[in-house]
Amino acid sequence: MLRILLINDTSKKVGRLRAALSEAGFEVIDESGLTIDLPARVEAVRPDVVLIDTESPSRDVMEQVVLVTRDQPHPIVMFTDEHDPGVMRQAIKSGVSAYIVEGIHAQRLQPIMDVAMARFESDQVLRSQLQARDQQLAERKRVELAKGMLMKMKDCNEEQAYTLMRRQAMSKQQKLIQVAEQIIAMNELLG
Amino acid sequence: MLRILLINDTSKKVGRLRAALSEAGFEVIDESGLTIDLPARVEAVRPDVVLIDTESPSRDVMEQVVLVTRDQPHPIVMFTDEHDPGVMRQAIKSGVSAYIVEGIHAQRLQPIMDVAMARFESDQVLRSQLQARDQQLAERKRVELAKGMLMKMKDCNEEQAYTLMRRQAMSKQQKLIQVAEQIIAMNELLG
Repeated sequence: MLRILLINDTSKKVGRLRAALSEAGFEVIDESGLTIDLPARVEAVRPDVVLIDTESPSRDVMEQVVLVTRDQPHPIVMFTDEHDPGVMRQAIKSGVSAYIVEGIHAQRLQPIMDVAMARFESDQVLRSQLQARDQQLAERKRVELAKGMLMKMKDCNEEQAYTLMRRQAMSKQQKLIQVAEQIIAMNELLG
Repeated sequence: MLRILLINDTSKKVGRLRAALSEAGFEVIDESGLTIDLPARVEAVRPDVVLIDTESPSRDVMEQVVLVTRDQPHPIVMFTDEHDPGVMRQAIKSGVSAYIVEGIHAQRLQPIMDVAMARFESDQVLRSQLQARDQQLAERKRVELAKGMLMKMKDCNEEQAYTLMRRQAMSKQQKLIQVAEQIIAMNELLG
């Protein structure tokens, strides 16, 4: 049973939405207007899904979505009347897993949530791959920097410096990047 | 006006789907069953969107989607009756931009297509960033390899080898990776 954090600006419709959610078997664990601090609320109530119901998502709502996606990624489903393709693009770029332009029908909620969860997982895989590549590139640069420093300190060639670093990593059971950071720190200390 | 390549296995429904598409203002430029070579068809008819209508997407259909996404990415919209979350995940992982479990209603087609296009663009950005990072990493490795070869050939240190490569790149108006590939090729030639 999915636990929903419901965010909405369309108070007149809330009754209908809550009814549709409960009919479809979801539990609304918390409900707020659009002006809250969304990351803090997500942190506090730890929902499975954030459901945002808004006539048209404002720039402020988009920013809240960006923050949640960056700091504590969750599936975010947006129900809206906004047809503008620019707004759709912005919402999806911000991290919305499902952007639904239509009325809310109880019998359609389950597949919408399932697709949103699948989309969220798939996006998370891509994002974490991207992050891993960035880290790899950054680490390679640090290792190269440390290797150059070691070559000067020990007056040795590239291969020898690299072998020294690898041996140190193995004997201390550390990663190469940790050894590199130690060399860089030592180099700063020695001036 | 979006040009649609329509793929379907539910011949009895086709009339209704074509009617909904045309009512919503889309042009079906080509129509096929599910057993075609999808990448070849996409290449031949160059649609804006591939629309797959199937009761449940088979493994073969998923593979066709993977091939299109890899070789000639297009927005792919899938209408289906398949509720299974595992199948949804597989479809989205394969590159489906929109997975729609429901009947087809003309008035909903426009926002579905718009969301699919936005999703496709957003995925393409992520995928191309990932590809760029992979290329950067691969190029760094080739440049390092070439630098090491040059150090031996010229009996010089790392900095000198790097400076030589950079100068060569500037004087020939080439990229560093091109100079690196020339050094590696030359090294192979010389044995």
